[in-house]
Amino acid sequence: MRIALLQTAGDPQNRPAANLDRLEEAAARAAADGARLLVAPEMFLSGYNIGAQAAGVAAETVDGPSAARAADIARRHGIAICYGYPERGEDGAVYNSALLLDRDGKSLLNFRKTHLFGDLDRAMFAPGPGTAEIAALDGYRVGILICYDVEFPEAVRALALGGADLVLVPTANMTPYDAVSLFVVPARAFESELYVAYANRCGSEGELDYMGLSCVGNPNGGNLVLAGDGEELVFADLDPERLRQARLLNTHMRDRRPEIYARQLGDR
Amino acid sequence: MRIALLQTAGDPQNRPAANLDRLEEAAARAAADGARLLVAPEMFLSGYNIGAQAAGVAAETVDGPSAARAADIARRHGIAICYGYPERGEDGAVYNSALLLDRDGKSLLNFRKTHLFGDLDRAMFAPGPGTAEIAALDGYRVGILICYDVEFPEAVRALALGGADLVLVPTANMTPYDAVSLFVVPARAFESELYVAYANRCGSEGELDYMGLSCVGNPNGGNLVLAGDGEELVFADLDPERLRQARLLNTHMRDRRPEIYARQLGDR
Repeated sequence: MRIALLQTAGDPQNRPAANLDRLEEAAARAAADGARLLVAPEMFLSGYNIGAQAAGVAAETVDGPSAARAADIARRHGIAICYGYPERGEDGAVYNSALLLDRDGKSLLNFRKTHLFGDLDRAMFAPGPGTAEIAALDGYRVGILICYDVEFPEAVRALALGGADLVLVPTANMTPYDAVSLFVVPARAFESELYVAYANRCGSEGELDYMGLSCVGNPNGGNLVLAGDGEELVFADLDPERLRQARLLNTHMRDRRPEIYARQLGDR
Repeated sequence: MRIALLQTAGDPQNRPAANLDRLEEAAARAAADGARLLVAPEMFLSGYNIGAQAAGVAAETVDGPSAARAADIARRHGIAICYGYPERGEDGAVYNSALLLDRDGKSLLNFRKTHLFGDLDRAMFAPGPGTAEIAALDGYRVGILICYDVEFPEAVRALALGGADLVLVPTANMTPYDAVSLFVVPARAFESELYVAYANRCGSEGELDYMGLSCVGNPNGGNLVLAGDGEELVFADLDPERLRQARLLNTHMRDRRPEIYARQLGDR
């Protein structure tokens, strides 16, 4: 399965309609090049570093008008889409969420960021409950994490234990944290025997400089692809046979010692 | 604190006395260059790929004659030493172990490999019980893992939760697993906010080709040092102030959500 990552700064004025235009343009290009899935960054719809008030204003329910337009884009271009947005929960709280739509525009997964990053996230969002839901897409079992979540091996393990083959990670990662693309994403793919698609922002928002470096962690080691620091549509080809071979060579999931972890980690 | 990693193929005939001679030579060189700790590879004393019978013959108790000579080396050269050896347990079983001696020759830690690697390890060794003991050395809180253990984020987390600043990892890592030095060790250091000293074998033993690439994972990202593929004494300078700064910048340990992990991972 070919996938595409939309590395972008997004609309300078953070207008959802303008960002959906960008999403549509990227979906058309990605589909034309054979991609079956497009992953956009964290808080793609509204911008990320926008403050609590703006996040509250921009927040939509999981089936809000922007989700409806994204579903229409998916349907018209025949490509599954995952993108980040501020979600107004049924409880009234605002979550840092990502939605996955299939190429018929049907909602497959909605994930709420579980590990909030610093004052930035905490000022805007309530933390997600730590779901580890998995959906089927083109024969792959797919889960979602958002940005900082993937830096916690525990979060990827939970998806791997549920059988995930591919973890989608909309992100908004800024300097100086290039270690995430260079080391952490490849390590997650290797140690949990799955693909990790990490789609970052680029450009700047206020004091934040996003470094790009969108990448796809390879269960065979390293990154399948690593982007530069600018606007880019990044392609990678996932291969079920290479995934199968990685799982023969890398036996981490089989060799875990959960009875030890329960004792050492279970209550902390 | 300056540390040294002894990357070596060891004695071609796997004679413990000859390997202890190598250890002494390395201890002298490391101490002369200011190192306070020398880490040698997994099964350094006897060779690693030697089969169950030879491992049983070579196995010594934790306070056996080789440990006594290593303690003497530590004392005479004024350098702490960690090295791998086949241990005869009090239960009669043979473990893949590593011993840490301080520079007075006193035993600080003995660790038994917990995650056995494939048929190779399982033919020779009983699995360790998954201890996460920590000792104080030069103001650092130090733990031990062996080779494959460090590929499990859970094992490093257990030490980090116990307050470790530095994890010593005698290893015998072979092609094609260079992803461990290149990605996994740096990721462990970053995500668990500690130094990881990974001391590998080089050369060949039977069908195994060790790739060297001994390294020291840096909590600030990447490796402090990464060796080549041949015989080498590798130095790295650990810095408590840089470790402190890494822990201010990287907030993973504070931001974990253990109540979620207990539910998702605790019973698996």
